[in-house]
Amino acid sequence: MGLSRFASRVVRETLGAVRTAQMRCEHGYLASRKIPSARGAAERLVRATAGARGEGRGTGSTPRAANGFSAHAVSAGDVVEDGGPINPFMIVDDELRAIGERMRRAVTSDIPALSTASEYFFKLGAEGKRMRPTVLMLMASAMTTGISTNAARGGWREADHAPAHEAPDDVRRRQQRLAEIAEMIHVASLLHDDVLDNAATRRGLRALNLEVGNKLAILAGDFLLARASVTLASLRNTEVIELLSRVLEHLVAGEVMQMTAKPESLSSMEHYVKKTYYKTASLIANSSKAIALLGGHGEKSADLAYDYGKNLGLAFQFQDDVLDFIGSESILGKPTLGDLKEGIATAPVLFAVEEFPELQELVERRFKHSGDVQRAHELVKKSKGIARTQELAREHRDLAIAAIDALPVSESSYANKCRRALKELARRSVERSK
Amino acid sequence: MGLSRFASRVVRETLGAVRTAQMRCEHGYLASRKIPSARGAAERLVRATAGARGEGRGTGSTPRAANGFSAHAVSAGDVVEDGGPINPFMIVDDELRAIGERMRRAVTSDIPALSTASEYFFKLGAEGKRMRPTVLMLMASAMTTGISTNAARGGWREADHAPAHEAPDDVRRRQQRLAEIAEMIHVASLLHDDVLDNAATRRGLRALNLEVGNKLAILAGDFLLARASVTLASLRNTEVIELLSRVLEHLVAGEVMQMTAKPESLSSMEHYVKKTYYKTASLIANSSKAIALLGGHGEKSADLAYDYGKNLGLAFQFQDDVLDFIGSESILGKPTLGDLKEGIATAPVLFAVEEFPELQELVERRFKHSGDVQRAHELVKKSKGIARTQELAREHRDLAIAAIDALPVSESSYANKCRRALKELARRSVERSK
Repeated sequence: MGLSRFASRVVRETLGAVRTAQMRCEHGYLASRKIPSARGAAERLVRATAGARGEGRGTGSTPRAANGFSAHAVSAGDVVEDGGPINPFMIVDDELRAIGERMRRAVTSDIPALSTASEYFFKLGAEGKRMRPTVLMLMASAMTTGISTNAARGGWREADHAPAHEAPDDVRRRQQRLAEIAEMIHVASLLHDDVLDNAATRRGLRALNLEVGNKLAILAGDFLLARASVTLASLRNTEVIELLSRVLEHLVAGEVMQMTAKPESLSSMEHYVKKTYYKTASLIANSSKAIALLGGHGEKSADLAYDYGKNLGLAFQFQDDVLDFIGSESILGKPTLGDLKEGIATAPVLFAVEEFPELQELVERRFKHSGDVQRAHELVKKSKGIARTQELAREHRDLAIAAIDALPVSESSYANKCRRALKELARRSVERSK
Repeated sequence: MGLSRFASRVVRETLGAVRTAQMRCEHGYLASRKIPSARGAAERLVRATAGARGEGRGTGSTPRAANGFSAHAVSAGDVVEDGGPINPFMIVDDELRAIGERMRRAVTSDIPALSTASEYFFKLGAEGKRMRPTVLMLMASAMTTGISTNAARGGWREADHAPAHEAPDDVRRRQQRLAEIAEMIHVASLLHDDVLDNAATRRGLRALNLEVGNKLAILAGDFLLARASVTLASLRNTEVIELLSRVLEHLVAGEVMQMTAKPESLSSMEHYVKKTYYKTASLIANSSKAIALLGGHGEKSADLAYDYGKNLGLAFQFQDDVLDFIGSESILGKPTLGDLKEGIATAPVLFAVEEFPELQELVERRFKHSGDVQRAHELVKKSKGIARTQELAREHRDLAIAAIDALPVSESSYANKCRRALKELARRSVERSK
């Protein structure tokens, strides 16, 4: 009921972008060439698109398509600061370290077994891409409109030692709490998903469900959700509490949609985009909005923050779908074709169905028959599915960038730097190879 | 950290009651007799205690020990109204029906598979004892101090059709929402516990995890927690949100304590009582307090509501522990000695260890060796463990009753009727046979 209303706007917008991408593919440069190998095609596509958009290649020697999505990747983007490329992760690195320290402590309850389980994902070096907290703290800074101050550059690099149920008065500290909550919700959903999927690895570590058993993985997820609830309640902002509560519903709804879709839904782009919004984009979209609200910004700015997060999340996921077909297993750190093997048809397949209707049957039986995965892979490679998905990802990248450009003008050089960093993140989300 | 502070008062009070019970057993009537059979002992104990306390046996022909704990059980208690015994469940029956109707609808998302799973426990006839919503709605009425009005007698018997994220202004409706939230949290914890325990049946139905698979059971639990969060957020009362968030932490902490206790903790009464508070009493205690806060009552009344809920929950659980030893499988609807078979040492065993130190070893290896369950059962029967646990349950019953008696005097006859009903519930919790 409520869920479908929420998602319908997202689906409508994305289907619009799908149609635009389709037209470009059918009438433009991309459709005019044969694509001999998926990997080669991807690199060419990335270069061609960068060229067509007049984006500089930068001075870095790393090809754009080889960019990673972490603090240590060198960006070859067009945003150059102090003689070097801007690195969104480095801007908030100190602050994220403090948040990470706090999170590791926050998940330490007085029950040793649980604390081991919950800390699993917050160990130094296992924090993943730290995408969400990076976006959220950049957003917090990007929205300040006044003159740059030392405070805006971050005087919050020391960990906050107050207990979860006692929220600080300081706005920045409250925003840090929100980043912490978003990450706890994210990790909780990973823990439960791993049990659901019987996943073997996560973030390059042995998945927690194998390490300590499904029971503790379920409980650790529940514990993180409970701790997130306590922290959230302590912020005492009912609109923010509502936004994040709704995210919990979306995460479950997305997982269930994936698990229980009827055959005819499996090949529906609408079903797929809705599921992707629920599973991937809702958390970052609504958390970004919450960051704005905690910062005291108005509804209009908060909605732009939401738009940025939503489109970044969708662009990121569509690129993930692409990489699952054309990525390098050694760079990704996981096997490719994982979605097909799990029976999931993502955007490249759904586009390919339009060219090769025989794919439909494979999609509807979730690639269960022997040879289905290989056959689907071949048809997707022959189709424009990958190119169209990349175009779709770029549409959402552009919408994310447009949301940042629509923010009220700021006189703060630091805020403007953070805005450039957010736009760089949006670019990276579709130009990464891992 | 936070958890242990929270529980320490409970543990302290209960250990006080344990010592009192111990002294009574050692020096009083109970200790002076041999107890030939556990079941017979229980009935004698119940009668003896009722007699010693000067409680009337009522006019019902059902022995007290055979009383059930549902709307259809005939109470033989001393609270008689309109020529018949008071039935706490009947007072709020219409309202509970409306809440149940709302809950069945509330858990219906737009995803059919999930709605089937979530509705499982809310089907008519499968609502269990409806203990929590009954207590909470009685508490809501019991706290009114003015003259009885028709409104106080419940003008809220029709289901509330507003969506979860839109809370009503009406106080009683908001309290109904709280009852709904408490029940959703309770069922969510049952769903996850069933997966953890690989439970085969729950409430006489096939357990959901077997019916639809562990995956959907985990997700259905997550869905209920998410829906509870949305409903809770909509109440826009940050103190209430904090109370219920804390409950989520307690439920996880209790489950983990049970699962991961070190051998030396397994025979610790302190560990056991703390776990019982987390797993059983915290939800009803904090929900009762939340009902009072939503009703606009002061902190002192709210704390009495908390005390009632906490002591009712503990009394109820201690009686459960007793029934697992002396109950009738046909009346309980489940096999007895379930705790021992699961490796869990409850209060009767922990008391028995004091008399038969050889039990300690069995407790610490979780009754894993062949013959352990039988041996432990025999030693418990020989010990005063069951009698002392019953005495402990009665201590908490009395504390629950005392909390109601300490409420500000009310001129409302309806409120007073509900207070009597709450006290009757406390009595039933220790005098039931199922």
